[in-house]
Amino acid sequence: MMFKVPRGTKDLLPGETGNWQAVESLIRETCRVYRYEEIRTPVFEQTELFTRSVGDTTDIVQKEMYTFQDRGGRSLTLRPEGTAPVVRAFVEHKLFGQPDQPVKLYYMGPMFRYERQQAGRYRQFVQFGVEAIGSDSPAIDAEVISLAMDVYRRAGLENLKLVINSLGDKETRNAHREALIRHFEPSIGEFCSDCQKRLEKNPLRILDCKVDRDHPLMKTAPALTDYLNESSAQYFAEVKEALDMLGIPYEVDPNLVRGLDYYNHTAFEIMSTADGFGAITTLCGGGRYNGLSEEIGGPEAPGIGFAMSIERLLMALDAEGVKLGDSEKPDAFIVALDEPSRLEAVRLLGELRSAGIAADMDYLGRKMKAQMKAADRIGAKFVIMIGENELEQGAATVKNMEAGTQEAVPFREIAAAVKQPS
Amino acid sequence: MMFKVPRGTKDLLPGETGNWQAVESLIRETCRVYRYEEIRTPVFEQTELFTRSVGDTTDIVQKEMYTFQDRGGRSLTLRPEGTAPVVRAFVEHKLFGQPDQPVKLYYMGPMFRYERQQAGRYRQFVQFGVEAIGSDSPAIDAEVISLAMDVYRRAGLENLKLVINSLGDKETRNAHREALIRHFEPSIGEFCSDCQKRLEKNPLRILDCKVDRDHPLMKTAPALTDYLNESSAQYFAEVKEALDMLGIPYEVDPNLVRGLDYYNHTAFEIMSTADGFGAITTLCGGGRYNGLSEEIGGPEAPGIGFAMSIERLLMALDAEGVKLGDSEKPDAFIVALDEPSRLEAVRLLGELRSAGIAADMDYLGRKMKAQMKAADRIGAKFVIMIGENELEQGAATVKNMEAGTQEAVPFREIAAAVKQPS
Repeated sequence: MMFKVPRGTKDLLPGETGNWQAVESLIRETCRVYRYEEIRTPVFEQTELFTRSVGDTTDIVQKEMYTFQDRGGRSLTLRPEGTAPVVRAFVEHKLFGQPDQPVKLYYMGPMFRYERQQAGRYRQFVQFGVEAIGSDSPAIDAEVISLAMDVYRRAGLENLKLVINSLGDKETRNAHREALIRHFEPSIGEFCSDCQKRLEKNPLRILDCKVDRDHPLMKTAPALTDYLNESSAQYFAEVKEALDMLGIPYEVDPNLVRGLDYYNHTAFEIMSTADGFGAITTLCGGGRYNGLSEEIGGPEAPGIGFAMSIERLLMALDAEGVKLGDSEKPDAFIVALDEPSRLEAVRLLGELRSAGIAADMDYLGRKMKAQMKAADRIGAKFVIMIGENELEQGAATVKNMEAGTQEAVPFREIAAAVKQPS
Repeated sequence: MMFKVPRGTKDLLPGETGNWQAVESLIRETCRVYRYEEIRTPVFEQTELFTRSVGDTTDIVQKEMYTFQDRGGRSLTLRPEGTAPVVRAFVEHKLFGQPDQPVKLYYMGPMFRYERQQAGRYRQFVQFGVEAIGSDSPAIDAEVISLAMDVYRRAGLENLKLVINSLGDKETRNAHREALIRHFEPSIGEFCSDCQKRLEKNPLRILDCKVDRDHPLMKTAPALTDYLNESSAQYFAEVKEALDMLGIPYEVDPNLVRGLDYYNHTAFEIMSTADGFGAITTLCGGGRYNGLSEEIGGPEAPGIGFAMSIERLLMALDAEGVKLGDSEKPDAFIVALDEPSRLEAVRLLGELRSAGIAADMDYLGRKMKAQMKAADRIGAKFVIMIGENELEQGAATVKNMEAGTQEAVPFREIAAAVKQPS
């Protein structure tokens, strides 16, 4: 029987993982200067955490969750997103009691959604996200957006578009909700059955529907922005002002609503505008979620955050032809000609590695010529040859492959010679 | 409703994650010098991969797997260990066809076992492991063991014990199996029902039983080592010789068998001998698994690897009182005294961070005194004060908190002043 990677998932092999590591360190460095600290929550949570927070009329909860019972009969769900778990941890560990608010957190790890297969979408995917919880200053909204933009800029992306919108507060959303019902109700029979259910429960989700997206009523639907009350409009103006101060260009798109129920006020997406990036251009999405903490049993703690897919960041780099760090070449490869030499090679290898030198040898008992070929193929900077002569003399033949030179080096001096080529 | 982290799992909060990051970079650096490259497989696999490889009489498969059906009716299991997925990927992506063998891989990520709760054991835990697949040279066994020891030594652990054993080849194991059956059969009624089932299916597993571990027949059970055939004994001798060359001390323990079915020849464990480390002292376990590739549908490809728990590594560091990197203090904190100053602070913050300076400001609209207190509490090296005066003069008041000095610095020179304190 041949086993395959589960449908909709993929392996990352050597050659690809180097790029992932490069992106991850760049993200950690960006979080360091922005003063966000890492939090790690488990891969699964109680199912109800997501139905309560993400919203039980959303596609994620209705169709895309990996839900199962553990051996103790608890309903668990592989996390489809990172915000609800982080806010759960913020509440459970009483981080709201820390003197310095907002608590600024980031996470990086696998998320799971059972989506139909399409290019660039996987059922297990990696998200990096940040959450700033405990402040409703418009300046923190701008900071969060700025952090996301900075990650892309540091990675080398140039073709980016930031789109923002305000979803307003509860009053705004209720007024808009009524307007949406009035707008769609007369023709709701022309919409899919999901949308018909959404009409009463959560009409905003209709705007998000993938099935009915081309229906003419979608274009003429009342925009949230027209229902913003004064305080929401003021808040949005201050977020824009802070973005201006940071020199971050943006477009306002009144139709930008996010696919999760917990958002209010600021919502944003960052898209790639690179040619040939594909149909789905969104790289990152986020927004404010005042009220989410209370919804899951915590105290009042206004928050804002975003999530970005690492896969899509790498795709965007690819579309713009940006190369991250190359895969590293070893410093040294030891060629051993007989059994006693192989034992000496084992010892020397240990010594070189202790000195921080990336080194390797042959483990297949190959002949000298094949070993030399291997050294060449992997691009070793130095080849260290050991045979009967070398053992007798107490000195190996060290070839500098770049310079094309070679010399006899006493065994105890090899580490220094390879580390500091003369 | 209050949500809690799922039973048997835990969150890693800021303050703890710094240690994890430090250990992870030390591991990546060790793998770099040993020339192992990262591979990432999904968090779940087809269930049968584990029943076939880990073995369906093992505790892991019988009692501890998180198994569920996805929405397409496939039986999936959250990986309980990392070797089978890596060998599955090695076979699926035909890595055996690469010119340089063995393929040397490492992984780092969450594993899942539904174990009863006890100190230091979690149902989701993080393992780092390596797999060298495609060589049966005894020198590669020593390399793999050496890598594990090096990780611990680089982390700063001193109280370590390496225990090795040989499980021999198929002939050895069959002879030993017969001896075990002869040994246990007359008294099998005194053993637990699991052991009674194991007697015919896999008597080696009896030695592993947690229920019957104190039964007197356990101590007198025939040791595998006494059944090693000549080639297996020769192989084991060469592994020990290579360890000697590397200067790595070890003990041979004929009773060391590992809890997974796929091992043969070399098996090893590394224990902490630190005082007060607790009842379970094993930090790392591994061994050779020739035949595993064929078992899951691949070509012949002898392999060896190990897995270590990061949690237990951190516990051992704790027991030995070793401290890893401190949590980092910010370079600068901006104190802004009024609304116009806050906007300037937003701009300046962006500038400082672009220059790689870890900087922060207040997002709660606190008064000056409270902002100063916050700057102090988080240990900022510089405090940058902006008020009406400073805006007028185009220069902020920059306090060097270590030196206790302060000076007026023009806004455009602040980044340089903070980066290179005069």
